Amino acid sequence: QMSFVTYPPNSHFPIENLPYGIYSTQDDPRPRAGVAIGDYVLDLTTVSNMQLFDDARLDQSELFCQPTLNEFMALGRSAWRAAREALQAHLQMGGYLDDDIYRELAFHHQNDVIMHLPAAIGDYTDFFSSYHHAFNTGSMFRDPENALLPNWRHLPVAYHGRASSVVVSGTPIHRPYGQSVRAQSSDPHFGPSRRMDIELEMGYFVGPGNALGQPIDIANAEEQIFGLVLVNDWSARDIQKWEYVPLGPFLAKNLGTTLSPWVVTLDALEPFRLPNPPQNPQPLPYLQSEENWGYDIQLEVHLQAEQMAEDALLSRSNAKYMYWSMAQQMAHHTITGCNLRPGDLLASGTLSGPTPDSYGSLLELSWGGEKPIPLPNGDSRTFLQDGDTVTLTGWAQGDGYRVGFGDCVGKLLPAIDRS
Amino acid sequence: QMSFVTYPPNSHFPIENLPYGIYSTQDDPRPRAGVAIGDYVLDLTTVSNMQLFDDARLDQSELFCQPTLNEFMALGRSAWRAAREALQAHLQMGGYLDDDIYRELAFHHQNDVIMHLPAAIGDYTDFFSSYHHAFNTGSMFRDPENALLPNWRHLPVAYHGRASSVVVSGTPIHRPYGQSVRAQSSDPHFGPSRRMDIELEMGYFVGPGNALGQPIDIANAEEQIFGLVLVNDWSARDIQKWEYVPLGPFLAKNLGTTLSPWVVTLDALEPFRLPNPPQNPQPLPYLQSEENWGYDIQLEVHLQAEQMAEDALLSRSNAKYMYWSMAQQMAHHTITGCNLRPGDLLASGTLSGPTPDSYGSLLELSWGGEKPIPLPNGDSRTFLQDGDTVTLTGWAQGDGYRVGFGDCVGKLLPAIDRS
Repeated sequence: QMSFVTYPPNSHFPIENLPYGIYSTQDDPRPRAGVAIGDYVLDLTTVSNMQLFDDARLDQSELFCQPTLNEFMALGRSAWRAAREALQAHLQMGGYLDDDIYRELAFHHQNDVIMHLPAAIGDYTDFFSSYHHAFNTGSMFRDPENALLPNWRHLPVAYHGRASSVVVSGTPIHRPYGQSVRAQSSDPHFGPSRRMDIELEMGYFVGPGNALGQPIDIANAEEQIFGLVLVNDWSARDIQKWEYVPLGPFLAKNLGTTLSPWVVTLDALEPFRLPNPPQNPQPLPYLQSEENWGYDIQLEVHLQAEQMAEDALLSRSNAKYMYWSMAQQMAHHTITGCNLRPGDLLASGTLSGPTPDSYGSLLELSWGGEKPIPLPNGDSRTFLQDGDTVTLTGWAQGDGYRVGFGDCVGKLLPAIDRS
Repeated sequence: QMSFVTYPPNSHFPIENLPYGIYSTQDDPRPRAGVAIGDYVLDLTTVSNMQLFDDARLDQSELFCQPTLNEFMALGRSAWRAAREALQAHLQMGGYLDDDIYRELAFHHQNDVIMHLPAAIGDYTDFFSSYHHAFNTGSMFRDPENALLPNWRHLPVAYHGRASSVVVSGTPIHRPYGQSVRAQSSDPHFGPSRRMDIELEMGYFVGPGNALGQPIDIANAEEQIFGLVLVNDWSARDIQKWEYVPLGPFLAKNLGTTLSPWVVTLDALEPFRLPNPPQNPQPLPYLQSEENWGYDIQLEVHLQAEQMAEDALLSRSNAKYMYWSMAQQMAHHTITGCNLRPGDLLASGTLSGPTPDSYGSLLELSWGGEKPIPLPNGDSRTFLQDGDTVTLTGWAQGDGYRVGFGDCVGKLLPAIDRS
């Protein structure tokens, strides 16, 4: 396929992708829905008003002029597919929008828009699904001989995260205050975190969801996943270590979670599916699926300190390092009858690969702070310093095109003065 | 004070209380705001339309005809006080509403209304703030000599709960399926939970809230708490035991959480404040408050099996058994910069007292299932059986009146057939 919108082969947003987002412009500050194509945003309210979604049987008047994609997410996969087909038809060379007037009317350059969160997130759940991350953290905090806890190979471990502090790429995060216990003391110290970290994750938005008491069968998970984003799960490791037994991470994680703004649909990622990783022992029947739930999505973590002219690559990983698939996560999450709602966010947990250059957190890259990570300017990091900007990026590599996620960016600001 | 609406001295809803809720009627299924008085609901849309809130400077047209109280909660304590004063004036003997026409127009009998959740809950947080509950569960699961974990006396331990499955009193809950490990096995078993439990808690709704990065100072907590409800935090103990290390409770708790429908304001509870319990060691400065944050609220747990003619009292406890106050919880929750939003729900954790007849869960009342709890019909319980209805109730006892919470009711239905 070729679009009349031109872009280079390494563009994250070719006609094969068409991710959805919520944006506004200086001229029109109302957040509304758009689709990324090359360096542009196609305004979906215009597309709707032009009745270009008529054949897709999508409600014209309301769906895309809202400040969130929740209602679109609620419609389900047949509606998402119809919209995708309509957009691909209209954006292709000679398609309906291939016209000077429409180019003027319906497109904004991405440099000229402000991106917002794609959905009102009712609940945010974070899993712990990468074997290597679970093994590394278990090795550091407990014992390499017993790195994995007994439940880890039987179920996708997860915790409920904080939805209110999920923010869109570009939102700065202040270094948090909190309690931690330092060496040579048993009493907690209060002050700014000294072990601020990031976590490289992927997240996905729930589609129609399920009613309370009615689990989602693993065979139906495909109908329930609208699309994926990159997630940076900022983590204060010193606060986490002191607080997390017995009820899990709380303040260490609720200071902010950053999402990339463009939601890449499951349909756009279809060509990049991989077989499931082997699981031993075999999971219980409600967690078994015949489908391929692996995805070959290359992921990168970059860091740029204020005094650096350009960012440095810290890690290369891949979405295929999920031991527990999205389908297994969803089936497990709802097996008790827990209801998922449209726009809920589920995330993978840190996606670390098998080798030290593929770890998804500074905690692992610096091995608990013991091995400083060198930076190209001669400086180094164990954990983040004030002013550091972290950028996650990721893409699936097709034949001559990429289905990309753009960037998930956040800068760590100094702790706010409390005096 | 006396209202023209008459009620007995043990009514939970005298003119001193005036709790807010969201209700609908068969004739008008639109959920809207009301206030409980005696056996009646005063319709707040009518009060607004009659301009009875004019002096209180509350927006007439929109505030109370919405399906949630979130916008009212966002207005802050001066608005809540103004509304309370206006309602007390209009409801007193000889007040504006003391008129046959208005009685017909503005009131519904509580038997004739359907109650809904009082707010759209963005996030739900559950604390672990009763010393006796923490001590009891620590004694059972670990060691009576080291029942409390090292962090417990230094910070109000909490976890993020599931907001989507918070339901209003009366909503039945199905016994959940899940994984658990049974005696003489190391592999998990899949099936309906065999250790279904309740937790007696109180919860409170957030008022205006705070921006991301801007903690709530403990001195400002009073401005941030709209009011309180009873909370039954249904818990599947066998699922919890297997899943909760290291990230905390997840599926064991997300199957449902039941709230009483009437939100009792902090102003109505003002006469029932108690000194704070002694805390040793002294908490860090951000958790210190000069105010009295204890509340003398009597709490009861009742159970009725299907074959019982009336319910049986299982436990009597009190809200004063919170070691960590609501103000401390809120200051801690936001110290990292985590933002609370209007309508967010924070709950106390199980409110167990010092004696075995005041424990707030079956886990404690039956001491891990070892001591069956006798019922008046000769039957007994360790954990819940299908068909059991659990009712929480609570009130503060004034001089000749009660400020009550009504009932928080839920029935456990059998697990749904998966075959």
